[in-house]
Amino acid sequence: MYFHLQRLINPIEQDEPDPAAANALQEGLGGQFGEMRTMMQYLFQSINFRGPEAKPYKDLLQGIGTEEIGHVELIGTTIARLLDGSPRYRGDSDDPVDEPGAGGAVPLNIALSEGNIHHYLVGAQGALPVDAAGNPWSGSYVYNSGNLVLDLLYNLMLESTGRLQKCRIYEMTANKTARSTISYLIVRDQAHENAYAKALETLGVNWRTALPIPKTNADRFPEVKRLLDLGLQSTQYSFDLDDQSEAGRIFQGLSPSGDGTMLDASQQAPEGTPITIAPERREEFSPGADAELTALIAATAEMEMADMEATFGRL
Amino acid sequence: MYFHLQRLINPIEQDEPDPAAANALQEGLGGQFGEMRTMMQYLFQSINFRGPEAKPYKDLLQGIGTEEIGHVELIGTTIARLLDGSPRYRGDSDDPVDEPGAGGAVPLNIALSEGNIHHYLVGAQGALPVDAAGNPWSGSYVYNSGNLVLDLLYNLMLESTGRLQKCRIYEMTANKTARSTISYLIVRDQAHENAYAKALETLGVNWRTALPIPKTNADRFPEVKRLLDLGLQSTQYSFDLDDQSEAGRIFQGLSPSGDGTMLDASQQAPEGTPITIAPERREEFSPGADAELTALIAATAEMEMADMEATFGRL
Amino acid sequence: MYFHLQRLINPIEQDEPDPAAANALQEGLGGQFGEMRTMMQYLFQSINFRGPEAKPYKDLLQGIGTEEIGHVELIGTTIARLLDGSPRYRGDSDDPVDEPGAGGAVPLNIALSEGNIHHYLVGAQGALPVDAAGNPWSGSYVYNSGNLVLDLLYNLMLESTGRLQKCRIYEMTANKTARSTISYLIVRDQAHENAYAKALETLGVNWRTALPIPKTNADRFPEVKRLLDLGLQSTQYSFDLDDQSEAGRIFQGLSPSGDGTMLDASQQAPEGTPITIAPERREEFSPGADAELTALIAATAEMEMADMEATFGRL
Amino acid sequence: MYFHLQRLINPIEQDEPDPAAANALQEGLGGQFGEMRTMMQYLFQSINFRGPEAKPYKDLLQGIGTEEIGHVELIGTTIARLLDGSPRYRGDSDDPVDEPGAGGAVPLNIALSEGNIHHYLVGAQGALPVDAAGNPWSGSYVYNSGNLVLDLLYNLMLESTGRLQKCRIYEMTANKTARSTISYLIVRDQAHENAYAKALETLGVNWRTALPIPKTNADRFPEVKRLLDLGLQSTQYSFDLDDQSEAGRIFQGLSPSGDGTMLDASQQAPEGTPITIAPERREEFSPGADAELTALIAATAEMEMADMEATFGRL
Amino acid sequence: MYFHLQRLINPIEQDEPDPAAANALQEGLGGQFGEMRTMMQYLFQSINFRGPEAKPYKDLLQGIGTEEIGHVELIGTTIARLLDGSPRYRGDSDDPVDEPGAGGAVPLNIALSEGNIHHYLVGAQGALPVDAAGNPWSGSYVYNSGNLVLDLLYNLMLESTGRLQKCRIYEMTANKTARSTISYLIVRDQAHENAYAKALETLGVNWRTALPIPKTNADRFPEVKRLLDLGLQSTQYSFDLDDQSEAGRIFQGLSPSGDGTMLDASQQAPEGTPITIAPERREEFSPGADAELTALIAATAEMEMADMEATFGRL
Amino acid sequence: MYFHLQRLINPIEQDEPDPAAANALQEGLGGQFGEMRTMMQYLFQSINFRGPEAKPYKDLLQGIGTEEIGHVELIGTTIARLLDGSPRYRGDSDDPVDEPGAGGAVPLNIALSEGNIHHYLVGAQGALPVDAAGNPWSGSYVYNSGNLVLDLLYNLMLESTGRLQKCRIYEMTANKTARSTISYLIVRDQAHENAYAKALETLGVNWRTALPIPKTNADRFPEVKRLLDLGLQSTQYSFDLDDQSEAGRIFQGLSPSGDGTMLDASQQAPEGTPITIAPERREEFSPGADAELTALIAATAEMEMADMEATFGRL
Repeated sequence: MYFHLQRLINPIEQDEPDPAAANALQEGLGGQFGEMRTMMQYLFQSINFRGPEAKPYKDLLQGIGTEEIGHVELIGTTIARLLDGSPRYRGDSDDPVDEPGAGGAVPLNIALSEGNIHHYLVGAQGALPVDAAGNPWSGSYVYNSGNLVLDLLYNLMLESTGRLQKCRIYEMTANKTARSTISYLIVRDQAHENAYAKALETLGVNWRTALPIPKTNADRFPEVKRLLDLGLQSTQYSFDLDDQSEAGRIFQGLSPSGDGTMLDASQQAPEGTPITIAPERREEFSPGADAELTALIAATAEMEMADMEATFGRL
Repeated sequence: MYFHLQRLINPIEQDEPDPAAANALQEGLGGQFGEMRTMMQYLFQSINFRGPEAKPYKDLLQGIGTEEIGHVELIGTTIARLLDGSPRYRGDSDDPVDEPGAGGAVPLNIALSEGNIHHYLVGAQGALPVDAAGNPWSGSYVYNSGNLVLDLLYNLMLESTGRLQKCRIYEMTANKTARSTISYLIVRDQAHENAYAKALETLGVNWRTALPIPKTNADRFPEVKRLLDLGLQSTQYSFDLDDQSEAGRIFQGLSPSGDGTMLDASQQAPEGTPITIAPERREEFSPGADAELTALIAATAEMEMADMEATFGRL
Repeated sequence: MYFHLQRLINPIEQDEPDPAAANALQEGLGGQFGEMRTMMQYLFQSINFRGPEAKPYKDLLQGIGTEEIGHVELIGTTIARLLDGSPRYRGDSDDPVDEPGAGGAVPLNIALSEGNIHHYLVGAQGALPVDAAGNPWSGSYVYNSGNLVLDLLYNLMLESTGRLQKCRIYEMTANKTARSTISYLIVRDQAHENAYAKALETLGVNWRTALPIPKTNADRFPEVKRLLDLGLQSTQYSFDLDDQSEAGRIFQGLSPSGDGTMLDASQQAPEGTPITIAPERREEFSPGADAELTALIAATAEMEMADMEATFGRL
Repeated sequence: MYFHLQRLINPIEQDEPDPAAANALQEGLGGQFGEMRTMMQYLFQSINFRGPEAKPYKDLLQGIGTEEIGHVELIGTTIARLLDGSPRYRGDSDDPVDEPGAGGAVPLNIALSEGNIHHYLVGAQGALPVDAAGNPWSGSYVYNSGNLVLDLLYNLMLESTGRLQKCRIYEMTANKTARSTISYLIVRDQAHENAYAKALETLGVNWRTALPIPKTNADRFPEVKRLLDLGLQSTQYSFDLDDQSEAGRIFQGLSPSGDGTMLDASQQAPEGTPITIAPERREEFSPGADAELTALIAATAEMEMADMEATFGRL
Repeated sequence: MYFHLQRLINPIEQDEPDPAAANALQEGLGGQFGEMRTMMQYLFQSINFRGPEAKPYKDLLQGIGTEEIGHVELIGTTIARLLDGSPRYRGDSDDPVDEPGAGGAVPLNIALSEGNIHHYLVGAQGALPVDAAGNPWSGSYVYNSGNLVLDLLYNLMLESTGRLQKCRIYEMTANKTARSTISYLIVRDQAHENAYAKALETLGVNWRTALPIPKTNADRFPEVKRLLDLGLQSTQYSFDLDDQSEAGRIFQGLSPSGDGTMLDASQQAPEGTPITIAPERREEFSPGADAELTALIAATAEMEMADMEATFGRL
Repeated sequence: MYFHLQRLINPIEQDEPDPAAANALQEGLGGQFGEMRTMMQYLFQSINFRGPEAKPYKDLLQGIGTEEIGHVELIGTTIARLLDGSPRYRGDSDDPVDEPGAGGAVPLNIALSEGNIHHYLVGAQGALPVDAAGNPWSGSYVYNSGNLVLDLLYNLMLESTGRLQKCRIYEMTANKTARSTISYLIVRDQAHENAYAKALETLGVNWRTALPIPKTNADRFPEVKRLLDLGLQSTQYSFDLDDQSEAGRIFQGLSPSGDGTMLDASQQAPEGTPITIAPERREEFSPGADAELTALIAATAEMEMADMEATFGRL
């Protein structure tokens, strides 16, 4: 059973809208090695897990899988922010030209030349479950052989590939909104690399100098370095409400990445940051609840209440 | 940010393995109208939500979406149990013929004639992210137009179709393991139908006698009736950790299904039931951590500790 | 612009339900070489056609394409009939056990072992836009290179492959419902083979003894022979309402299949046969308009009428 | 059985080629909520329809479905016109450089930077069965649950989403060719919204102020307003050749969109406009029948005639 | 550049046709971890390879990739043999009933109940590029990150998973035709596991007791044991015509599988076994060149010769 | 069984990187009518071939299929060269800014605006198994009906379509690297057109003036003309190592393309040209074996040797 906390797992920096960067980040959300895939893969591996004596491994999968749901939330929100308002349409104005399409205006013409046209046509300047080339996410991505060593080996490769791709995305844009999330995920992917590498060490492998993959875990990317200095690459949260996780029996000792840090699984979750709600976008015919709607809600509730009183007497 | 509780959202009854029923249930997990889809659709709708004044609608989507992750866990576990042990291979025996394939044995020949061969060949008698015809789940299923009325209308149709399909699955098998989960989901789908129908009522629609869809909400299916009598079709949990959900401003008053019940959104979550871990299956080469492995884990930990002491001195 | 006539292009014989045969016929509907594909391919080739002086070729494509929509209707209806009632559930009975699922009954358990489970789970014993292995139809099947010779060559190959597959389906089942439609389509595919072969003859190819493909156009299949004796393989209808088709400038002269017949494009359409409507199926929760519903329709109409009279005065 | 009339359902305005707009319109043709989908969905719902007493509903589906084939023809032709000639290659010139590729020319280099490269590489400046992001149309889009209320609810949502997306496309381009078709389809989608909303009203729902979706049915888009003033949003044609449609029993009374108009189902079809044939495009190696080819056709016909006379005597 | 030798890489044993086993083997051909995938993955990795000083790694990929083309040929031929003749139709008989479909016969009715219906309907009792659940092979399977360590790690996981799946297939059938090929591929997959494991050892990993995966490399499967005794798991061929491969610089020393054998890369290729051609199957309308056809070939050749002599004089 | 020769089938000219041209060429590699498809289609047709007396046809398919593997290698390498270095990142510099991403640099920002972003994000400036619109290659492309005439007819159409598309790509770019390969494949596609046309002639068809398709086989494209003058369109290699191919019994006589040349199947293979290895690209984290790595390889080998000597004594 899962619970939600109305906080983002990491803060997102403010910057200008950037639909091309948004599209690159889609690979990290809906791509073959993105967050939807890690999330689903670990949830399936946890559901289908075998071996009552191997609970620490199941708990490790469960904990990382639960974190990945929060990563889907984080990168999805980041993409939405990079898109939000990118057509520069002033929907809050009183100018009649500001009505979408009024008088022959073309407030969405940016859609024809930037990133993925579906961001404006199918969605309303929001994230989509597709990769950066527009391919929808597929269940065929999920790997769960049922053989513990193979599943862990795949997971290590998966996290390393995700990290490699995010390092490449980092090099594609200097937008701060994009980079704040990408940098965080680069470091968390390394934490997960460490987790699976450590689990494989307990099953017989010695990684020596092979980790991390790719060979960059420090000062090259300033935003990443800041997080590494906090030790986020060597921390694994449980996200477990009743504190029953035994993942700490695996995620302990020296980091297999060879950076000299000690692995730490003692925390339940990071602090997080509040979630805000995006404004409505008239040019997308995407209204939320305006004054008129709020009045309707109140009126409906009152009417119901009156109905019920009529039926059941004064409540 | 998400958290996990090591409890299943509803208990699963014990019965014999039944791979054909397991395959039918795959539609409810990875099908176009199954739990993976509702989960992803609501999470995307919540992430991309617009309208700061419309928070109760976002909270409703977020709450149901979070519940759906637990439904994925529930139906996935149910499928795994229906498959587990279906080849009737006695892996715990001392009989040498009982080694998988030894002496030319064919312990997995059931795979050629039952349900989906991938349940034995790609997975290890576990759930897959595919539908009952073997099609992998696709991101193209997710609907999120950004127009609140349309999104709610789609969600109502989605829950009703999910409920329709589960009513059909109910009629395909009498296996108790399958039915305990299917019946629970039929009732919860109705609760979600009620939630979206109520939300649309606040936006102007009057459903009169149209709900529920399909027209069965009571005594025809005994397992379903038992849950309806508990009022589960009129209850919506928040699954919200800090109690910030405003969904109760919508999910209140008389049920739009016309069964005379009052909608209730006052609970955080159901109690749940403990999760157990499946046994290893040698014929799938799917071992967990046996005695030998457990020893390895301990030894590795000790070795690390020794290494560290050598490096850093007594800890 | 298109019009519909409430008649099937060819009569369907009565026989027992046969879900396995229904599934085989799905290849002829939604398969890579089925009727949905020929229909879409010719409509696209007609829409994108180039060359004002080449109108007879466009008209030929348009005429065959229009016929194929009727073939989709024919084979879809045939599949629906082969499925309809296959669970042998007596929905018209007064027996309470006859309510779907009542008392734990499993009226749809046939779905677990016959043909495609989606026929009962996703559809309600009706045709689906998929092939015999369950793959959904794809727009990537449509071929339209824009080079007239290539398009005609592809179309000839397409019709021949469709005919080959239908000959194989003929050999898979003796069900009369299935065979009456399959036999008709075998002969019509040959007529279309002839049409494209003739068009290629006008552009330079001499087929000599190569046609028809496959080498069976006569007496081996009794149901097919009957239709060949009527000359249906050498007839092409225009389906053109204002009689503007010039396809007859191509579809004339000796048949390229070498059976000694003359091609004839003088008719607008076959006579057809009335369409009937299938009964409702309670076990699928698939009701049509019963007495109660009919009353509702009448009541609604009257109410509207009254409203309008109140508004506009007596009409 | 279907028939074709060599007239487009609505005229297309002339304007400059515009491949980016052409690509946006692909969503309306081959997208998940485009015309190929509505067409196929309604044809399948009509084929699989249940309930002899519910014929008016079947006739409504059949009539709208038949109209959608004409919409596929209309939007496909519009896309083809937007693409036709966009490389600005003067194929009718005598300049030897004007031969495609001659002397190293690159007449198709526009393909590398505009819209979808397949418009020039796979097709010959013509429409494709794909969406605006290049995904091929899929049979998995078709929804046909067999439950009448659900099917109608889905159809209402489908038309509303199609209309929403077309409103967004309207805002992406001011090209007159694109807008003349988009505006027409916006209004026709509303007519279909009305049709399904009305059908649901007869089954119990009261839409009150919820329709139309999205909330724009009038004067914002000038091209749309002109068509609304003609009442096209409240008219439904039968496209039924023998006048057997009973759809008018449903499509009558006050419009559920609340614009005060009366629904009218008394006409068989609109008048339409003649279809023209596009010129050949040498740079695509896409010839039609030029003088040389026409001569070939004549010669072949004569040769055949001579053969036949030799065989059968003077005809 | 590639060359072909008309010999199969390993002999296939004779046994009865077995369409269910054929279908299981499709996973090994067209599945996500089958031979088409390994072949394509290694060919792409070799084509895109970076690092002039890393040629031994490229040569290793190229050598294994070239072997995999031969594996596609081997397992494809095995599937074709398992299917060939499975309908038990005596096509060589003089009995008129033996003509396919004659007199209403149904020689292909086996297709409705065995394995994948496409084996009889789309193919003619031959192998298909699909997996055991009927999903077509996809280019999205190919992994080629461009990071050498990651590519090797993925390849190790890929071969291990292929081997795991083949061990499971072994346990599904006792058919000798199926097992002779499956056993060979189990052993060759282990050789490739060793190759990639060794390559990773040179880059820093120490596998200790982790290999092979899964933990079975010997005597459990008799057919496998025979090949292990020949040392096939520790041999890698170059398949390199001019002997320029440097893969032996990597594939040397003690096997990382810990079986005490020494790796040997000194041979160019195995000896192989002759390829035979399958008989024609009339019930599939799948003729080869019979006497009549052979005569045609000869006649055509003579005619051409005569033409040429007429044109050019005596040759 | 297959062998590889470390030579490319045709030389690739040097020119500047050009990612847009690279993307267009992807259609020729992973498109529906590209080299991966011809390769797979002919290999499957050869594997499933029927008719011991029809060996020349099988040998023709096998020979062309083997050539196509070399074409995959050629066009894949061409794409990789067009991409290689396109970000203009000077990875060999000592400038610290030259470290990828260092100091906030964005060396890969070209990826957001050119061709397919996956070329930089998923691959490392290398070829992908996708088409020019980014769709992954699919096994559903492979056609193998088992009817010899149909298979040959399809192959003729396939080669002609491939040639048509390559003629269009030729017209999209003047880049010499792209054109050298495209021109070669245009001519080889014509050779294969001739092969299948000739095979169909032996089975009864007379092509007269219909070939080649499209109607350009000579002087329009200078690079193509040069190869035609060498007669490459009328030559077919066997690629058969033991000289057992009988394809020359078919590929002989006058070319069906009507250019007056004689078909020649006497050669085993072209001479080819050496393969070079691309440099490493740091900005992609795509290292090969640098000095450090080479040292590691040597050290590892020595260590192993020492281990073995310790175990087995001096070797």
